[in-house]
Amino acid sequence: MSEEANSLDFSRYPQRHLLGIAERTSDEISFLLDLADRYVVQNRLPGKKLDLLSGRTVINLFFESSTRTRTSFELAAKRLGADVINMSVSTSSIKKGETLIDTAMTLNAMRPDVLVVRHPDSGAVQLLSEKVNCAVINGGDGSHEHPTQALLDALTIRRRVGRLEGLTVAICGDILHSRVARSNIHLLTVMGAHVRLIAPPTLMPSSVERLGVEAFTDMRAGLQGVDIVMMLRLQTERMQGNYVPSIREYFRFYGLDQEKLSLAKPDALVMHPGPMNRGVEIDSELADDLDRSLIRDQVEMGVAVRMACLDVLTRVLRRDAETEAGVGT
Amino acid sequence: MSEEANSLDFSRYPQRHLLGIAERTSDEISFLLDLADRYVVQNRLPGKKLDLLSGRTVINLFFESSTRTRTSFELAAKRLGADVINMSVSTSSIKKGETLIDTAMTLNAMRPDVLVVRHPDSGAVQLLSEKVNCAVINGGDGSHEHPTQALLDALTIRRRVGRLEGLTVAICGDILHSRVARSNIHLLTVMGAHVRLIAPPTLMPSSVERLGVEAFTDMRAGLQGVDIVMMLRLQTERMQGNYVPSIREYFRFYGLDQEKLSLAKPDALVMHPGPMNRGVEIDSELADDLDRSLIRDQVEMGVAVRMACLDVLTRVLRRDAETEAGVGT
Amino acid sequence: MSEEANSLDFSRYPQRHLLGIAERTSDEISFLLDLADRYVVQNRLPGKKLDLLSGRTVINLFFESSTRTRTSFELAAKRLGADVINMSVSTSSIKKGETLIDTAMTLNAMRPDVLVVRHPDSGAVQLLSEKVNCAVINGGDGSHEHPTQALLDALTIRRRVGRLEGLTVAICGDILHSRVARSNIHLLTVMGAHVRLIAPPTLMPSSVERLGVEAFTDMRAGLQGVDIVMMLRLQTERMQGNYVPSIREYFRFYGLDQEKLSLAKPDALVMHPGPMNRGVEIDSELADDLDRSLIRDQVEMGVAVRMACLDVLTRVLRRDAETEAGVGT
Repeated sequence: MSEEANSLDFSRYPQRHLLGIAERTSDEISFLLDLADRYVVQNRLPGKKLDLLSGRTVINLFFESSTRTRTSFELAAKRLGADVINMSVSTSSIKKGETLIDTAMTLNAMRPDVLVVRHPDSGAVQLLSEKVNCAVINGGDGSHEHPTQALLDALTIRRRVGRLEGLTVAICGDILHSRVARSNIHLLTVMGAHVRLIAPPTLMPSSVERLGVEAFTDMRAGLQGVDIVMMLRLQTERMQGNYVPSIREYFRFYGLDQEKLSLAKPDALVMHPGPMNRGVEIDSELADDLDRSLIRDQVEMGVAVRMACLDVLTRVLRRDAETEAGVGT
Repeated sequence: MSEEANSLDFSRYPQRHLLGIAERTSDEISFLLDLADRYVVQNRLPGKKLDLLSGRTVINLFFESSTRTRTSFELAAKRLGADVINMSVSTSSIKKGETLIDTAMTLNAMRPDVLVVRHPDSGAVQLLSEKVNCAVINGGDGSHEHPTQALLDALTIRRRVGRLEGLTVAICGDILHSRVARSNIHLLTVMGAHVRLIAPPTLMPSSVERLGVEAFTDMRAGLQGVDIVMMLRLQTERMQGNYVPSIREYFRFYGLDQEKLSLAKPDALVMHPGPMNRGVEIDSELADDLDRSLIRDQVEMGVAVRMACLDVLTRVLRRDAETEAGVGT
Repeated sequence: MSEEANSLDFSRYPQRHLLGIAERTSDEISFLLDLADRYVVQNRLPGKKLDLLSGRTVINLFFESSTRTRTSFELAAKRLGADVINMSVSTSSIKKGETLIDTAMTLNAMRPDVLVVRHPDSGAVQLLSEKVNCAVINGGDGSHEHPTQALLDALTIRRRVGRLEGLTVAICGDILHSRVARSNIHLLTVMGAHVRLIAPPTLMPSSVERLGVEAFTDMRAGLQGVDIVMMLRLQTERMQGNYVPSIREYFRFYGLDQEKLSLAKPDALVMHPGPMNRGVEIDSELADDLDRSLIRDQVEMGVAVRMACLDVLTRVLRRDAETEAGVGT
């Protein structure tokens, strides 16, 4: 595996951090997906563990709880041989009044190699990244970005369909509050896919045109002829001050079932970032239909994508350290 | 150690999971105890750590909190060289409405090797085991089973007395709500011990005869001539809707002290799965009397038994993988 | 590194535990600082991880939550190759009524090598240490001691100024409730520094003379000509029944700012154990002034000091095990 990985040209991803998809080029994204592809194969072998990150420390700094994402990053890091330290907000000194910046600088002084940060405020991860020497991966910040989710979604599609370019992808649900939607819009657009947003008027962002996508408030109209339907989780916890739809009403107009899906292409595929609200965003049987649903694949791709990100960012760290030390100049 | 272990015939435990004691044979149980015996010796050596599970991932999935059991499994897995990931319900996405099955399938897609699961509902661990490809160990489900507790209790007795067969064991306390009692009844009965249950009428199960044991509501009568007294923890948190005895009254009739213990055999031994309510189920001095109390031994045996279970289940995984790959056929 | 470390004379620290600074000699303290100095260098190298504690198990047993201290110990142990198990009070069986001693004996039966214990009650860590066979490090107990904090503070000063002897150090703030103050007073005094305490009358201990230090209730008088100003965190959570000052009033009289600092020596340095209440104990700009503030250094030194403590205590364990086994006699 590591010999193979070495045959990839790691200079194609020259960034120190992974804060979002918005500034990434199609070549950077393709490179991360190519590398992740190899980790998918690796993870299916019996001896899954490597030592690429042996001696490295990854800190999962979660200001918002998330079993899936934290576990996925923890597994990815451990499979590469890293030591992992979990810090969740419930046991954090943030409660004692410490600022985000002080937390960042404290952790930085402990000299970790990678910080994976999830935070309820948009922009908090970027701010933190400016105060540290290590690599930072955005594990989701407010309603801003969730780059590894967009990468794993792209890897899932690319492995099943063979490409991203030219596909029509409908993203449906609570677009307004969704960092998953935001990162996916950036990624799919730069990779040449056509993106449609489907949401009730109250959950649709105001300046959709700027993003280069089409907006639909009628789900049936939006699903016509699409290749992929990405459902979003209804984030009732982020809807303060907005209109919260009743569950029955929401499912009737914006929940995905076989009848609405029949308006898409005959072999259209269904995705969901999880955790699902069965019967709210998506029909329970449809979610489990392995001919149409890619939901389980998404989880598996998540570990591989995070291994790829950890791999590439620590290689950047090593290169920078060698440059500073005058090696290779 | 691993050479010695290899001299054991691992085909004696052919199961993929360890969900309960109810269906296990005396040979399967003896095999697990024989293997655990070797880990007791191993754990007392200075270089305690092995690499049998190197590259393997064990996930502790606890829907109910338990410091002891989680720590015991974590230690056991790490001593065998595995990577361990802890997931507790408090940080879990179950809160966000995800179903047990979705949690199982999500974790399964991350390709762990062993899931250790504790759940407040009887049967939940079995249900989960049907949805995953990895090995599952029941870390306690509702009032159903707690197989590693019964195994560690058996190992503790066997090491001290030399055998299980022919012994008379009294299990005392809240039998009705106790998965520890249920697993121990199965194990002791199949291994040829005589089991007596001692409980207030409201905490005694209704169909005791079916289990092949004797029931006593008078503790003094039940303790006559027994070899072992297993006290249970008073699970006040599980007694909703039932009669909750006052502590003083409970101790008077069903608490173990020197006076009641004098009715048992002169060298009768005392056990408790912990954590103890001192002065409720058991007299504090008696709990600390190392001539009579096996309580500390039980904790030590717990780590060894869990190492044995992890060892044998991952060997089954390897054998199944080799069979699928056509190796050895 | 390990060859270098071996050139130190480890018999200079012969203790099995690190419970406090009060009984430690200046030679023991100097030895720990010398060893920690080497770990500072080690931690700045790219391949940070060693295998000195490979096969060892360190349990972080925290009855009080503390992100910083727990993370610092966890990092230190992992950098030395140990396995680390975290136990926090929120998931602990203490809730179920188990006593501190039962927790100690339970953990002891699992045969860990080192227990790092933080507890809200003064003396609890000592009590626990008397019940176990492993090494115990006090991670802070009530308002009693926090020895690794005092050691990291001393290391920070010694690396910057070159010595501790003859320096005048002012410790300012909530002295009464501070284990950090108590451990620092012991350490600085035995190492030949002059200690001044600055606090409002209600937050000053009653028998200061006994400690061999000077007491000031006027901060400006206390800061005259000092080399080092150690600010303490305002522990409002520990002030039940005492006078709690308003934040504005507190900062005016006992908060450190440029104006008050100008009364100290021209190159006086500023410290804080963190987490800081910016604008309460210390002016925010001053905290970030890297010419005067050692606050970030303190965090870095914390990891190195804890590595030194873990290293030396496990060497004592090994020596004791060898002595018992008759090796080297």
